[in-house]
Amino acid sequence: MRRIQVSLGERSYPIVIGSGLLDGIAELCGEAGFPVRSSLLVVSDNSVAPLYLDGLTAKLEEGGYKVVTHIIPAGEASKSLTVYEEVMTTAIKAGLDRHSAVLALGGGVVGDLAGFVAATYMRGIGFLQIPTTILAHDSSVGGKVAVNHPLAKNMIGAFYQPKMVVYDLDTLATLPPRDVRSGLAEVIKHGLILDREFAYWCREHAAELLSLQPEALGYALERGCAIKADVVGEDEREHGLRAILNLGHTIGHAIEAVGGYGTFLHGEAISIGMAGSALVAAKLGRPQSLYEETVSMLTALELPVTLPAQYSVDDIIEAMMHDKKFKEGRITFIVPDEIGAVSIVEGVEESVIREVVGQLKKEGSPW
Amino acid sequence: MRRIQVSLGERSYPIVIGSGLLDGIAELCGEAGFPVRSSLLVVSDNSVAPLYLDGLTAKLEEGGYKVVTHIIPAGEASKSLTVYEEVMTTAIKAGLDRHSAVLALGGGVVGDLAGFVAATYMRGIGFLQIPTTILAHDSSVGGKVAVNHPLAKNMIGAFYQPKMVVYDLDTLATLPPRDVRSGLAEVIKHGLILDREFAYWCREHAAELLSLQPEALGYALERGCAIKADVVGEDEREHGLRAILNLGHTIGHAIEAVGGYGTFLHGEAISIGMAGSALVAAKLGRPQSLYEETVSMLTALELPVTLPAQYSVDDIIEAMMHDKKFKEGRITFIVPDEIGAVSIVEGVEESVIREVVGQLKKEGSPW
Repeated sequence: MRRIQVSLGERSYPIVIGSGLLDGIAELCGEAGFPVRSSLLVVSDNSVAPLYLDGLTAKLEEGGYKVVTHIIPAGEASKSLTVYEEVMTTAIKAGLDRHSAVLALGGGVVGDLAGFVAATYMRGIGFLQIPTTILAHDSSVGGKVAVNHPLAKNMIGAFYQPKMVVYDLDTLATLPPRDVRSGLAEVIKHGLILDREFAYWCREHAAELLSLQPEALGYALERGCAIKADVVGEDEREHGLRAILNLGHTIGHAIEAVGGYGTFLHGEAISIGMAGSALVAAKLGRPQSLYEETVSMLTALELPVTLPAQYSVDDIIEAMMHDKKFKEGRITFIVPDEIGAVSIVEGVEESVIREVVGQLKKEGSPW
Repeated sequence: MRRIQVSLGERSYPIVIGSGLLDGIAELCGEAGFPVRSSLLVVSDNSVAPLYLDGLTAKLEEGGYKVVTHIIPAGEASKSLTVYEEVMTTAIKAGLDRHSAVLALGGGVVGDLAGFVAATYMRGIGFLQIPTTILAHDSSVGGKVAVNHPLAKNMIGAFYQPKMVVYDLDTLATLPPRDVRSGLAEVIKHGLILDREFAYWCREHAAELLSLQPEALGYALERGCAIKADVVGEDEREHGLRAILNLGHTIGHAIEAVGGYGTFLHGEAISIGMAGSALVAAKLGRPQSLYEETVSMLTALELPVTLPAQYSVDDIIEAMMHDKKFKEGRITFIVPDEIGAVSIVEGVEESVIREVVGQLKKEGSPW
């Protein structure tokens, strides 16, 4: 079993990573501070619940907890105020009180929604995350919880830290290969930002990671979580440093928006975005080899690094504008300096980004 | 101008009390840390807005701020997720960003709703309270913000501190006399809990308070806010001590629930509740004179201390049960020890409370 401590003063919490952890979930809930005999609300979605919810509930009840469950439809559409209110209704009807806690069993959508419920039910009750995707290693560290407003994603939310994150590697075995790759994009992002050695390690162990070999996967999640935890520990409420976590995300979000959410998975889009960031770096004087190394790492994990021909450069730039990222033709951009180090560069010209997006298409065979 | 500092570490903030403060609101917003040229969302209700909103907007715009306004219907029904989402829509359409702030111009409903918007818009932006009722001196200190769920009041919310509270005494001049009295109930409650001298001072200066004489009113709000600020500073998230602020509220809430919200104003209901608490105290061995002194203070402020004949004791007890206040026939109750001191007493028998509620009716001429 691997353990990482996220250091946030009185809001510090552990991330526990290993196989077979759900068997001991009741003990972990006890360690998280949830009193035995209190009610736990488990939120999950209709993809994950059929696989793990009954087993989880049984273990919690054996451990003396009362369990209430709420299953939401899988997918981003469930991150709405409507579904949020429905989960609240379940919580109230079940008589959850201040000693109760919410458990999120699922990926990012479940974690974000359930976390916002925990943050705001009776002004905040206990929260524990059980991520069942690789991608969620990212969203489960840092305490960002939210739902979407019809006009904008993640606009309604809070910074609210869980009491514990329980990462049972066994729950990853059923992930579709494309979701595995998408999740690994955020893993290697953490290496590209802050840990050169880890980035190279990921390239070297790509085959083991793609085949979900437990030892390699456990180490990768531990390093990924630890790097993110360090950044969040320095800047919990995103005043500055935390922005480096957005490497590849400016272009990536625009690709997601233009393609329509779901065309590219999040990790795929930011993989292309990270390739783009390395091209921006080259234009700002960093060595061309940085781009080549970055691309070799991403492709080792079978991630895309080019834009399909049908994407229009204008549309991508337009999407960034819409996201209010540009101010007077300039943008603040996370630029890699070398593998394992990035800078927050203010005032990057729109023309540079435009050229890079064009290059991402030209470099590309249709993916 | 009077100033009180609420001491909560990095979440500390000042309460400013005085006449004519709204003229200098732009400077106060600057002091609160809201950057000039940023957008401020002023939330108010349709009772208060016609009186002060135009003037406030003009002063803010003169000071260089962009102002967006959202007016809600006056009354508790506006503390809903539906209205909350509407305010969010206004904020998003106006392009509020992380440097923006929400200003609550109004009483408790406006403060609770606008505060929850500020707490959760983009995971938390600046918040400033401009209370326009005496009652709001209580709700504007302590950071409790919330909306109601159809099944339960204040069930959805957060602890979220404002950057500043601006109490312009001039805005109180238009308060109906019944609201003045209701507000003074929470003022004297702070004396009854923790400040014997202040409680006697309120009785002595009742006429000046009831006629809104600025010097007396300013002092009373300063002491009321300061006492509450001390308690909140010790126990921000209501783990223990903060419960003493609920003096009179257990019986008071039950009276509100049975009467239908609106029959008694909140302060009136807790005034009866505080008289009841002193009767409980007598049954637990405190001197009978404590009840008489308490009643003399409440009646000096023209507040009710008895239950109208049509109220049924069973209904009141039933409402407390529903509120889950009783556990196995016993209840934790805030019991006065003397004027200016209270205890949190666990395990008070239902029979004692039942007897006291009956006495509140018997003592009473119909009010």
